[in-house]
Amino acid sequence: MTTPVAFQKCIHPPCAATFDLREVLTACPRCGHLLDVEYDWARVELPKRAADLGRVGDGPGAAQMPEGGLCRLSGVWRFGCLLPFAPAEHRASIGEGHTQLRPAPRVAEYAGLRKDNLWLQYEGLNPSGSFKDNGMAGAFSHASLVGATVAACASTGNTSASLAAFAAAGGRMRAIIFIGDGKVAYGKLSQALDYGALTLLVKGDFDDAMARVQEVCAAEKIYLVNSVNPFRLEGQKTVMYRVLEGLGWRVPDWIVCPGGNLGNSSAFGKALFELHRLGFIPRLPRLAVINSAGAPTLDRLVNGQGVVWNGGAPDEAKISSYFAGLDARGEKARTLASAIEINRPVNLRKCLRALEWCRGVARAVPDQEILDAKAQVAREGLGCEPASAASVAGLRQLVAEGVIDREATVACILTGHQLKDPHATVAYHSCDEAGLARDYGEFGVRLNRHANRPVPVANDLGNILDAIRKARAG
Amino acid sequence: MTTPVAFQKCIHPPCAATFDLREVLTACPRCGHLLDVEYDWARVELPKRAADLGRVGDGPGAAQMPEGGLCRLSGVWRFGCLLPFAPAEHRASIGEGHTQLRPAPRVAEYAGLRKDNLWLQYEGLNPSGSFKDNGMAGAFSHASLVGATVAACASTGNTSASLAAFAAAGGRMRAIIFIGDGKVAYGKLSQALDYGALTLLVKGDFDDAMARVQEVCAAEKIYLVNSVNPFRLEGQKTVMYRVLEGLGWRVPDWIVCPGGNLGNSSAFGKALFELHRLGFIPRLPRLAVINSAGAPTLDRLVNGQGVVWNGGAPDEAKISSYFAGLDARGEKARTLASAIEINRPVNLRKCLRALEWCRGVARAVPDQEILDAKAQVAREGLGCEPASAASVAGLRQLVAEGVIDREATVACILTGHQLKDPHATVAYHSCDEAGLARDYGEFGVRLNRHANRPVPVANDLGNILDAIRKARAG
Repeated sequence: MTTPVAFQKCIHPPCAATFDLREVLTACPRCGHLLDVEYDWARVELPKRAADLGRVGDGPGAAQMPEGGLCRLSGVWRFGCLLPFAPAEHRASIGEGHTQLRPAPRVAEYAGLRKDNLWLQYEGLNPSGSFKDNGMAGAFSHASLVGATVAACASTGNTSASLAAFAAAGGRMRAIIFIGDGKVAYGKLSQALDYGALTLLVKGDFDDAMARVQEVCAAEKIYLVNSVNPFRLEGQKTVMYRVLEGLGWRVPDWIVCPGGNLGNSSAFGKALFELHRLGFIPRLPRLAVINSAGAPTLDRLVNGQGVVWNGGAPDEAKISSYFAGLDARGEKARTLASAIEINRPVNLRKCLRALEWCRGVARAVPDQEILDAKAQVAREGLGCEPASAASVAGLRQLVAEGVIDREATVACILTGHQLKDPHATVAYHSCDEAGLARDYGEFGVRLNRHANRPVPVANDLGNILDAIRKARAG
Repeated sequence: MTTPVAFQKCIHPPCAATFDLREVLTACPRCGHLLDVEYDWARVELPKRAADLGRVGDGPGAAQMPEGGLCRLSGVWRFGCLLPFAPAEHRASIGEGHTQLRPAPRVAEYAGLRKDNLWLQYEGLNPSGSFKDNGMAGAFSHASLVGATVAACASTGNTSASLAAFAAAGGRMRAIIFIGDGKVAYGKLSQALDYGALTLLVKGDFDDAMARVQEVCAAEKIYLVNSVNPFRLEGQKTVMYRVLEGLGWRVPDWIVCPGGNLGNSSAFGKALFELHRLGFIPRLPRLAVINSAGAPTLDRLVNGQGVVWNGGAPDEAKISSYFAGLDARGEKARTLASAIEINRPVNLRKCLRALEWCRGVARAVPDQEILDAKAQVAREGLGCEPASAASVAGLRQLVAEGVIDREATVACILTGHQLKDPHATVAYHSCDEAGLARDYGEFGVRLNRHANRPVPVANDLGNILDAIRKARAG
């Protein structure tokens, strides 16, 4: 029997067990480690040049353009040759991945880089407002392949919005969202409720919701789309393809991304490793993964404990001891950057692997720096949620440290849209110091150095002209 | 002297004065009517087939694909041959118009149409979250052409967000936003503040802010981007091109859009009229423009007063008398659908002209119907703000009246993203009747017939499985 083109494989090298593509697994049944989706690349039809990988329109290597034109095209599936697990009839899409890579000269200066050397990849343009739609396109396609009819996740934010949007758009999958009711952020639920997902408020916190969703999925054969699902990460690889495409396939020196559950950094590492192995890029960029200081697991393990992937044999004792310490101290993640407010990242080991492949680094940045960086990013015309700006805050710190050279070329990933969390934006720009301390003091945010305050004026031409001249002069 | 390819022209047929493209005008200096951007089409290079109008990639008639691939492509400027006023070096873009036309079988059934006959055009996918980015691409390009360095508008919502995003992205234009401080919706300001626009809170209401911004623009040679600007409407024409492209250039029987300031319907009418005249479509679709019942000017004038374009001679006495009546009664626009909360639409006459060209109709729908329709739209996977759903609520009413045939093919325009106004969403789905009456009773909203309520469950597998089974059975 020949190896199938696509299969699942345990990431733990001593195990390396392989499983059929159609098995629904959240971990290796033999050793409990995470799974990858792997391919027999020799049998995958690929274009010759990187420039043709995501091509739209005519010509060799071009992706098929569906009837109806550009508007229906998926920014994930036009790179389908690099995630060849789903035949066309199973590819799910809500029009995700029409995102942008923008040059960001003023943010470059803020971060300490040369002004022509920084680009921002804005994933907030996805239909549900965050990068999660990329991965959900992957997971929903696998769910379709295995004939699943119900999908579930634990989440209070972006993942639930994406799952609910995909389920509603396809119309054949039912979505179930598990939320810990101890800390319900109703605003973050607006999308899941609107898109019609069954939304369960589980008495308890996020960890309880996560534990229950896994039990329920096992008991009821419900398809789990939390990012333990390796097909999520296949979809998220396409963020890297779009960054490189935007750069004309010139490899930047560094990729910088926020780190929460560590799915992005894991997927980016895999995307880059594969592109390099397939000969589409001549070298791997370096990778920087940025935690919030309020949820600093990766930073503490990598920089505090010296934990590395070590070819597949990380120091598991140190990792266990770190998490035991969190439990003993009752230490919970707490940051304004809610999308990365996670202390137990499920993709930790895949991220360590990505750091090894890409000679990567990890850092943690305070919420104050995150909000300041967010304001700088918006001045470039890209509105992002706080977690996204961790990438820019981290870049700035790494340039100051000398880890990232001032002459380096860098792409920072912005994961979600500003409208996901307008509160922090309004507070930052319009609060006085007392207001800021009241609303955000617990996160260590006391200054709004880059605030753009609204200016009250009388209903009078002269008064208004004075205000405009004063603002111009200032 | 030959006529230039593009010029400005007064819409009032007895005047029909023309002006140079580079003049900055907000009305005809001779008669005070609105201006159009017009073209000498005989000298515009156009592809032969409609299918090539917005083409990306190789082949005759294809739009140039900028270096860097799809991600940098503008959904406005790839149709640049149909708005040929700005040479390439002046074309402004923030990556707008990567929007979607989606089939909507369940919303079709809700509205009373055959399930295969309805499409929803989702403009919430624009970078600033609303259709305004299409028009702002037009206005900013003209501003660049005339060398403007400061642009201003009066707005509390989508226009200010779009203006601020364009100004920040380009980095060469300063943006000034005028807001009436009497009714500041801080949430709606989050984008303008974040993108760095100078935001003036004018003591007074929206009308005061509008009056002052016009004075200031005149006094200081500041470029006004409110939708009296005809270049805004040129950009908004592209929404129609993308709808038709999405339908393979088959003309639907009806286009249905929300009506507030009436810029969209005006632009759509012009787009369709021009396409027909140029031979790209064999007939014009009919047009339905839907007010909220809380801001029903178009509906009242058209259906109550019988006002029509009348070849350019509408009954101005009736129009004046209507507005005088609003003043006399102190009647203010008041609707949950804040993006169309406008009683004095600046594009009224252009909209009347569009209704004449397209054998159009106007209707007003209650906020209750708007929120119900919004919930139906979201069940299809498209989250929109309340104003957007007026199109679907209006469609439903017109099908019930028999004005739109049940067999008709229809495209409804959804103008903005759900995240622009998550409050209404959460309230609709999670309030009990008392809560709904408290929050939205003043808008006549008392029922949430299509609510998707969150379900509280114990932290217990059995309890959760029961809840899931119950929801499935229900």
